[in-house]
Amino acid sequence: MRAKKRAAETILTEQVMLTYTNHYGTLYGGKLLELMDKAAFIATSRFAHSDTVTASSESVDFHHPIRFGDIIELAAKVIFTGRTSMVVRIHAFGEGRRDHKKFLATTGYFNMVAVDEQGRPKEVPELILETEEERREWETGKRIKELSEERTARKGRGGS
Amino acid sequence: MRAKKRAAETILTEQVMLTYTNHYGTLYGGKLLELMDKAAFIATSRFAHSDTVTASSESVDFHHPIRFGDIIELAAKVIFTGRTSMVVRIHAFGEGRRDHKKFLATTGYFNMVAVDEQGRPKEVPELILETEEERREWETGKRIKELSEERTARKGRGGS
Amino acid sequence: MRAKKRAAETILTEQVMLTYTNHYGTLYGGKLLELMDKAAFIATSRFAHSDTVTASSESVDFHHPIRFGDIIELAAKVIFTGRTSMVVRIHAFGEGRRDHKKFLATTGYFNMVAVDEQGRPKEVPELILETEEERREWETGKRIKELSEERTARKGRGGS
Amino acid sequence: MRAKKRAAETILTEQVMLTYTNHYGTLYGGKLLELMDKAAFIATSRFAHSDTVTASSESVDFHHPIRFGDIIELAAKVIFTGRTSMVVRIHAFGEGRRDHKKFLATTGYFNMVAVDEQGRPKEVPELILETEEERREWETGKRIKELSEERTARKGRGGS
Amino acid sequence: MRAKKRAAETILTEQVMLTYTNHYGTLYGGKLLELMDKAAFIATSRFAHSDTVTASSESVDFHHPIRFGDIIELAAKVIFTGRTSMVVRIHAFGEGRRDHKKFLATTGYFNMVAVDEQGRPKEVPELILETEEERREWETGKRIKELSEERTARKGRGGS
Amino acid sequence: MRAKKRAAETILTEQVMLTYTNHYGTLYGGKLLELMDKAAFIATSRFAHSDTVTASSESVDFHHPIRFGDIIELAAKVIFTGRTSMVVRIHAFGEGRRDHKKFLATTGYFNMVAVDEQGRPKEVPELILETEEERREWETGKRIKELSEERTARKGRGGS
Repeated sequence: MRAKKRAAETILTEQVMLTYTNHYGTLYGGKLLELMDKAAFIATSRFAHSDTVTASSESVDFHHPIRFGDIIELAAKVIFTGRTSMVVRIHAFGEGRRDHKKFLATTGYFNMVAVDEQGRPKEVPELILETEEERREWETGKRIKELSEERTARKGRGGS
Repeated sequence: MRAKKRAAETILTEQVMLTYTNHYGTLYGGKLLELMDKAAFIATSRFAHSDTVTASSESVDFHHPIRFGDIIELAAKVIFTGRTSMVVRIHAFGEGRRDHKKFLATTGYFNMVAVDEQGRPKEVPELILETEEERREWETGKRIKELSEERTARKGRGGS
Repeated sequence: MRAKKRAAETILTEQVMLTYTNHYGTLYGGKLLELMDKAAFIATSRFAHSDTVTASSESVDFHHPIRFGDIIELAAKVIFTGRTSMVVRIHAFGEGRRDHKKFLATTGYFNMVAVDEQGRPKEVPELILETEEERREWETGKRIKELSEERTARKGRGGS
Repeated sequence: MRAKKRAAETILTEQVMLTYTNHYGTLYGGKLLELMDKAAFIATSRFAHSDTVTASSESVDFHHPIRFGDIIELAAKVIFTGRTSMVVRIHAFGEGRRDHKKFLATTGYFNMVAVDEQGRPKEVPELILETEEERREWETGKRIKELSEERTARKGRGGS
Repeated sequence: MRAKKRAAETILTEQVMLTYTNHYGTLYGGKLLELMDKAAFIATSRFAHSDTVTASSESVDFHHPIRFGDIIELAAKVIFTGRTSMVVRIHAFGEGRRDHKKFLATTGYFNMVAVDEQGRPKEVPELILETEEERREWETGKRIKELSEERTARKGRGGS
Repeated sequence: MRAKKRAAETILTEQVMLTYTNHYGTLYGGKLLELMDKAAFIATSRFAHSDTVTASSESVDFHHPIRFGDIIELAAKVIFTGRTSMVVRIHAFGEGRRDHKKFLATTGYFNMVAVDEQGRPKEVPELILETEEERREWETGKRIKELSEERTARKGRGGS
């Protein structure tokens, strides 16, 4: 029988170094996407006790810039599970370097697949939902999964 | 009157260096997302003759891995324009280091906004469509723009 | 009157990327020291609500290597406070990429000083100790602070 | 019989990130040389359908600096072929981030050698020249090849 | 019989690039620790003609910041030898980019162990002391070695 | 009257980290060119007590590859001076990580110009030659300077 499991949040903390900034003096989108991909890998490999690969990154909304020198905290959590796939939600928070006020900077979703040592998809535990928020995030994750499947289907029919 | 303009493709060429690889020996997703964000910036700043910022990255589908040592070619093109926003489509191709066979590795879309020197949104030229493919990509861009507006609306109503 | 405050643990999570490895295939010491310095900065700036600078890094014991592809978790906590200085303890844990077994890889201590916008030392809150472990770590921090003051004194007398 | 072939231009596009700049706020020479070496590798491996190695970099003239935030476009083309060696010419253009005016920033030449899987020199296709410019660039490439052979010869006789 | 040997100083020279700076515009501690670890490796591998690993970094005192654009010179020297271990002292000097005035910025000590190809500790040559300074530095190295052994002993008895 | 001065050698020491290697497992040309450019800057700014910029890199001959994990030593020295320009010669040596046998891997020359704070060319000290080798290297530097002036002249006449 398939294992069941709750998901814990994975926390990555970083400071916005100069090398992470664009010509506006803020964290550049590409670097944040890289950090989110890393968070997605760690959160899903912890959940599935397995290697995982990125199948797709989904909507990543950049709400607020994070300035040079400030702190970034990424909170990544598995919110939906298929048979071998997981949707992971990542919130990126900015945090003032001196006042330490936190604000939601970016939210994004990634589709990840668990793989065995030959790179073949591998079953993942079923996600246990307990709180109201977990049930709401499951719905979000499900919608994201469906959008990604629609894209695959359209492609099959020759669409873009 | 608002300017009208065709969009040219921006080409980025790279080799998969060791620093771009994950523990599977292939280009890691986070690095590819970073390259795509850079391509999105260059393509839109060329189209709008303006600074631009990433409003959101949309679906990015990882079809095929690109191996260490091989070549990456990114082709980025503005496919949809709103008043101040642009949707840019990016194809990332892998290319064998010796046989130079090309294959589509990843396709992604980014929502970008043109900004003036104070960071305020700024009008962009209207995209001129001439080929059948440009008209098809416009439809894809429009759907993406709508999905992103729906997300904003849901958030306004308190959804995730 | 001077503020009093408990210290929370700051968590940094990372994956050992290829660029972090030496010719033994493990996380190299220099990179780990860099990560610990970053953790020391974030933990003390959060505690003091202030910019902070590294006055000295103290003993950092490398117990076990962390392999390429595995996960690193750094847990940094202020364990001792002077008037303007803080001693921060950092544990670095390795975590198997597939089995997620955690082990203590490295422990280190950093002397940090809070500074104002002109770079002058600035008062920090007094650390509140509640648990037995916090009292034990305070003693460690105090010994470290004293060793560092002895070094300064010896230097004053012309020693090395 | 030995294959004959025209050479296509390889285009690399980049933005001058902070990490590429020196203390004058412009792209530093070392980074540009690195980008040119990458361009030389890709252009020659595409031409020869083979791995290639850098035998020498020849004159690289830095005409104009490229500023932080601006765009770099490198155009690399094989201009001369020996039996196993190729001379590749690389133009680096700067391009204003807002006005997109292009200017020639740097021109350089690299001597590259095609190698098989054991690292031994390997025959390359003969370059077909069609335009006047291609014939002129062939002469430049030939002179460069000769200068490099003279250096080797002088070294053989004990010179520097 | 065990080889005896004098120690030569290893010199690393670097410029403080933007990527090495923190939000104060100076070389950040973590980067300097990384450079010192590299210097420790090279100095000890040259002394022992062997691979070496970092057992611990000991006190590293940050006396003076080094500014962006200035030059760093690290001078690393083996000052104490045990049977398989070495203590290496590293001075980091700042050097003004225009006036080339040198000042001692940081001094640190690392405990290194020579290892064979299976990673097992391996005997190192005995250090020959000739100058007064070398004898003084030997005493410093010995004290550092003892402090590190005390830490190991305390840990064995359950201390922190 | 113009100052006269002997030139000292600037030594940079590095280990070939994974991030410096290509898909052949050796230091890649682009990285070595970057290190040489850094060495050229430091050697000339020390000689001229001034900021300097790269006017051109001249012939850089890659004689022998340096393998991952091995040590690189760059020795840079001003060998020729014009009124505001200097030719700097850089030898890059490889050094086995265990046997510490040194071999000449690469030799290159850079044309550097001293600049004041407004970026205008600035007089440099005259080079004093004392040894036979210094006189020989002066001749090499002079020939390099002349080749670079010929290139500039040809360009003026519309050549490539």
